[in-house]
Amino acid sequence: METCAPPQIDLEQTDFGYTLSLINGKYKMIIMYWLYQHKSIMRFNELKRSIGNISFKTLSLTLKEMEKDQLIVRKEYPQIPPKVEYSLSERGLSLIPLLDMMCQWGSSNRL
Amino acid sequence: METCAPPQIDLEQTDFGYTLSLINGKYKMIIMYWLYQHKSIMRFNELKRSIGNISFKTLSLTLKEMEKDQLIVRKEYPQIPPKVEYSLSERGLSLIPLLDMMCQWGSSNRL
Repeated sequence: METCAPPQIDLEQTDFGYTLSLINGKYKMIIMYWLYQHKSIMRFNELKRSIGNISFKTLSLTLKEMEKDQLIVRKEYPQIPPKVEYSLSERGLSLIPLLDMMCQWGSSNRL
Repeated sequence: METCAPPQIDLEQTDFGYTLSLINGKYKMIIMYWLYQHKSIMRFNELKRSIGNISFKTLSLTLKEMEKDQLIVRKEYPQIPPKVEYSLSERGLSLIPLLDMMCQWGSSNRL
């Protein structure tokens, strides 16, 4: 990782800092985990139920950020009541090995 | 990663959330990177110079947290002026493959 942190550079400009910025936050890894592990496609309310203590507004904002970062794909069906489904993008899927490594490390190294 | 995020659980309680909590923050990954990549042992002022825009107080607090999390080892020499050296612990070293993966992903996947 030779170019990971050149001197005098802010975290956001480093490559690992960029990756961190995408998975950071209270719910993003959990959302990716649910989309990956449990069902490849989930509706908004399913996600909300699975995560538990998250408000409508927070989940909505988090999903919008993840869509903007191209980690998830949002599909809206033109029907009443509206139906919206979320799934991992190819890009989101490519982060799963990282989540997996973090999960394993955390599981083995709790103090 | 079956047990990574059981339903209704807070991020801090998940295994990946625990790992995230250790590397999160504006400087921790950068500090680990410097300790790993450039010199295995660094003095406080060397670290400060390498990182660049970090205050004495912030670096000091960050290093204290990392010491408490057992990611780094602090060695103080009883001399005047005081000399303090930092290095990665075995536990800190075991996070390097994760940083490396984050670095590689970030390098390949910037939008």
